[in-house]
Amino acid sequence: MPSLLKNIERPDDLRALTVEELKQLAKEIRQRLVEVTAKNGGHLASSLGAVEIILALHSVFDFSSDRLVFDVGHQSYAHKLITGRNAAFDTLRCFGGISGFPKRQESIYDAHDSGHASDSLSIACGLAKARDLDADHREIVALIGDASLSGGLAFEALNQIGHDQCDLTIVLNDNEMSISPSVGALSLYLGRVRMSRPYRVTRDTVEGGLERIGRAGRALVSAGEAAKSSFKKLVVPGMFFEDMGIKYLGPIDGHAVSDMISAFNAARNYRGPVLVHTITQKGRGYAPAAACPEAFHGVSCYDPATGAAATQNTRQTYTQVFSSSLLAEARRDNDIVAITAAMPAGTGLDGFAAAFPRRFIDVGIAEEHAVALAAGLALAGKKPVVVIYSSFLQRAFDQLAVDVALQNLHVVLCLDRSGLVGEDGATHHGVLDLAYLRSLPSMRIIAPSDAASLRDGLHTALTLSDGPVAIRYPRGCVPGSAPEDLATNGKPSLLPLGQARQLRQGQDVALLALGKMVTLAQASAKLLAAQGIEASVYDMLWAKPVDAAVVAEAAQTRLVVTLEDGTITGGFGSAVLEMLATAPQRPPVLTLGIPDVPISHGSQECLFEQIGLIPERVASRIHEHLNA
Amino acid sequence: MPSLLKNIERPDDLRALTVEELKQLAKEIRQRLVEVTAKNGGHLASSLGAVEIILALHSVFDFSSDRLVFDVGHQSYAHKLITGRNAAFDTLRCFGGISGFPKRQESIYDAHDSGHASDSLSIACGLAKARDLDADHREIVALIGDASLSGGLAFEALNQIGHDQCDLTIVLNDNEMSISPSVGALSLYLGRVRMSRPYRVTRDTVEGGLERIGRAGRALVSAGEAAKSSFKKLVVPGMFFEDMGIKYLGPIDGHAVSDMISAFNAARNYRGPVLVHTITQKGRGYAPAAACPEAFHGVSCYDPATGAAATQNTRQTYTQVFSSSLLAEARRDNDIVAITAAMPAGTGLDGFAAAFPRRFIDVGIAEEHAVALAAGLALAGKKPVVVIYSSFLQRAFDQLAVDVALQNLHVVLCLDRSGLVGEDGATHHGVLDLAYLRSLPSMRIIAPSDAASLRDGLHTALTLSDGPVAIRYPRGCVPGSAPEDLATNGKPSLLPLGQARQLRQGQDVALLALGKMVTLAQASAKLLAAQGIEASVYDMLWAKPVDAAVVAEAAQTRLVVTLEDGTITGGFGSAVLEMLATAPQRPPVLTLGIPDVPISHGSQECLFEQIGLIPERVASRIHEHLNA
Repeated sequence: MPSLLKNIERPDDLRALTVEELKQLAKEIRQRLVEVTAKNGGHLASSLGAVEIILALHSVFDFSSDRLVFDVGHQSYAHKLITGRNAAFDTLRCFGGISGFPKRQESIYDAHDSGHASDSLSIACGLAKARDLDADHREIVALIGDASLSGGLAFEALNQIGHDQCDLTIVLNDNEMSISPSVGALSLYLGRVRMSRPYRVTRDTVEGGLERIGRAGRALVSAGEAAKSSFKKLVVPGMFFEDMGIKYLGPIDGHAVSDMISAFNAARNYRGPVLVHTITQKGRGYAPAAACPEAFHGVSCYDPATGAAATQNTRQTYTQVFSSSLLAEARRDNDIVAITAAMPAGTGLDGFAAAFPRRFIDVGIAEEHAVALAAGLALAGKKPVVVIYSSFLQRAFDQLAVDVALQNLHVVLCLDRSGLVGEDGATHHGVLDLAYLRSLPSMRIIAPSDAASLRDGLHTALTLSDGPVAIRYPRGCVPGSAPEDLATNGKPSLLPLGQARQLRQGQDVALLALGKMVTLAQASAKLLAAQGIEASVYDMLWAKPVDAAVVAEAAQTRLVVTLEDGTITGGFGSAVLEMLATAPQRPPVLTLGIPDVPISHGSQECLFEQIGLIPERVASRIHEHLNA
Repeated sequence: MPSLLKNIERPDDLRALTVEELKQLAKEIRQRLVEVTAKNGGHLASSLGAVEIILALHSVFDFSSDRLVFDVGHQSYAHKLITGRNAAFDTLRCFGGISGFPKRQESIYDAHDSGHASDSLSIACGLAKARDLDADHREIVALIGDASLSGGLAFEALNQIGHDQCDLTIVLNDNEMSISPSVGALSLYLGRVRMSRPYRVTRDTVEGGLERIGRAGRALVSAGEAAKSSFKKLVVPGMFFEDMGIKYLGPIDGHAVSDMISAFNAARNYRGPVLVHTITQKGRGYAPAAACPEAFHGVSCYDPATGAAATQNTRQTYTQVFSSSLLAEARRDNDIVAITAAMPAGTGLDGFAAAFPRRFIDVGIAEEHAVALAAGLALAGKKPVVVIYSSFLQRAFDQLAVDVALQNLHVVLCLDRSGLVGEDGATHHGVLDLAYLRSLPSMRIIAPSDAASLRDGLHTALTLSDGPVAIRYPRGCVPGSAPEDLATNGKPSLLPLGQARQLRQGQDVALLALGKMVTLAQASAKLLAAQGIEASVYDMLWAKPVDAAVVAEAAQTRLVVTLEDGTITGGFGSAVLEMLATAPQRPPVLTLGIPDVPISHGSQECLFEQIGLIPERVASRIHEHLNA
């Protein structure tokens, strides 16, 4: 059979296809997804699950004028393939190549640069309100997974969409698990709905159902219709959404293209908010991913024939060191409670969950709640350890400020994926944490540079009695040749509060490096030494409080250089500047870190090179400054 | 009748009172609330509405070991009066006096330092989980208003509480309006529930109802009970909560003490999550507040006999200038859409709402959604103006970062109540905004110092085509003798991007002042001049980008002084330090602003004095530094 995918240059081309051909196209798309992600890595399982939804959506709507808003956006691969990006798709997640998330600059079919969960309904609501003000007629569609619905932001948007009866279509892609199996009462509720009737709905029942619902119309949200409302609860599943004023259609098999085309057509013609509940299988059509969707949520290179990971990593990752260190601490201390927001495996908490199920809490995609919950646990004398990727912890900034920092509560925050994460790009880089955490009173921040300091940092954070402590560490392997399982074998030590350690002595320049940048500082110092410039190198360990004695010592040299993998606007370098602001010795301070611009996707190595955080560039910049 | 309140030293004393005496006590409490808030200002209307709920709660629970978590906490006045703080209550909101919010350091009866909406359910969930781990038996109660339920954080917590069947009691204080009338589908839903049956429920029906619900018990959340579940929808209001796995009791008259005592006793004995829905009247028992609860949400001094404000403010506030300026802009530009999060009056948007109802959006307490919605509007070519108090905008940090800044969307953010707000204290001070906004790429920040620069700043922000612009301005009056309505009469000018203006010339010291601090800088410069020190004074206007030419000019003096009413950790002062980090001229930089500790409550004047931001202290610190 000739390739259908190659002939799809834009979504309009779908209209010429029969349902059988759409099924064939779905197959080809899945092959292409496996082919490219096996090579480049990426979000496979959820992309495989959403293929038919995307084909059905593009068959019904015209997203050159209508708008399709993805939630998170890692389900958008099929959408990219049929909107003119099939050929370029080989560059997925590579520097300069196709992003793993929707990007407006890539295509007119991408309505919003998504990346973080639960914002799609708000964005769609904004697009709909603008459309209504302009008396325009474009259709607005949001595609959201069941896991994203647990984020409070999605509920805030539903609350307005229902109240204002915004005319838009919400497609709920319910794959019965998010990255890990879904948690939360809403997911139990969706489970009941799924069980309540066979979910292969024919065209007739869809349209009949909509007509029944439609009659109630806007009256649904008026108080006078209590009786009719009660009747509807008996006949219509999805009363949760109906109670919010949103028409509910479903559940529908999310792999049955023609059923979905019927449902989407019905939704398109309905004036007001409609939620179409589709049931999909994560990893659909690729056996290894279907069998183990959690492992294929985000993958590195793998063998497409078997699904086996291509390279066996022999070095420990920061996540692994954290994971075993926390387990060791938890064995000694019954008060430790670990909290994740839908990332038990990604954060390395799966081992903890297995060993201490009662002390493990997965709140789902709900970072605000994760932090406020931790505050509650700390108020009652527990030692909560909240483990969230750096960029996602941004969601809980207010809870960190008000519920934790102002109250000086002993909450331990572990920020995995700090710094540049690489291929996931701008929305996922954890480059703001040093700046925003540092501004909070009572916050302490540890940035470990190796396995031992991560283990010791965690131990220290758990030992400090009052107030919050954040530990930030990057994605990837710890430097040096770490023992196989250092964290559990080695006995942890306490890191003296706010104390750095000197790694190298030199009188010309002082390099104050944080976390992952310590390796860079040492390599740069070697290059400088070859040029006759002697540099001190310090592993600062603490971003707050910063070691004042070391900063004063550094100020005796001709140039102080700060190195961090966070934004230089308000980050660790600024902390050093603040300490030297009125000091008697004030040499120039070169602050190296993430510049004040969005950093795109690509390998970590490539991105660090792009922004000059490689030994050669660091050494040459120092050279320039000394000779200026 | 002798005073009952004077004899209540602790909640135990309530147990000796008859229901009639409790009613009398409620009356005395209301008198006391009016007496003190008339003198000190405060949150009157909601406190008046919650008196009976608090008496009933303290009659049933023992909060010396049980835990009562307030949401926001401005309803806690009656709780304070009966927990040993009646005598001290005259110092309400004064520096060193009783806080307007629960504070653990004030009383063992205060479980959590609340202040921001929607966190009580998460805190209560954490307390309950800690209790369960300890196999302890204390009861956990959260008291939350209907408006706070619209915050996504509350939903995230409900989602876990229902899923995990946490044993706790949620008291929903439903006063049918938040600060302004409630919005959102959930509030419409609550309206339907309220209408669905008479809400004076007797002891028998409460307990019968609970028994019926109780039978379903944990089974409610299992998928197998669909039939029973459908039946329950007919007989039980509050299915929204039941769908979340939370037992629902109500609605109950929130001013009928004995009914509530019955309901709370039933909830106390139930194992699992229960929501008791009480209906109250905001402003209850004080005619002026009951007639106009929005005006009495937060009040300044007033005449207790009439409710009339004690002092007629003759000078314009920043809020008023913003309000009329935005109206003028909106008359010229149809693309402007204004968004508030439940604060139409407080933010000065009520005039806009009346003039342009279609272009006005009140999302309720939902700051995350407010910002993401604005991103959606901006994507569609509108000019959204999001007006939120500075400390509440903290909630939307991730949406600012991901949905707005990374996408360089033209969203105008207006941060009212920036800096020290005064009597509301630590949770409400807007001191973090400069630090966290500055770290976002593409963000611009204007800090107007007077009426004209606020008007012009808004005009400039709306005129800049790409990217976000934040305008931060404080609570209170604009300095100088502003004309009656300058904003609409005067023609706005464009502020050149990142350009400061010099107000005074002097060669010894350069004072770089931001916003409200400009007045302080000028007064300080006068004092310095009297001591023979000549200071330049600059109104910086922009916190990002900072005027590089002015900073370089300032660096020619012996001392650069930055003045801001935001945290000095990562704030505007740090921006100046960053600019001078490797400059050829690097004089000492004295960064004056909010120190890195929580700032308590009290008048603005008093707080600024406490932290040394008064002319005498600024002048003397500069003097010291010049002579060091």
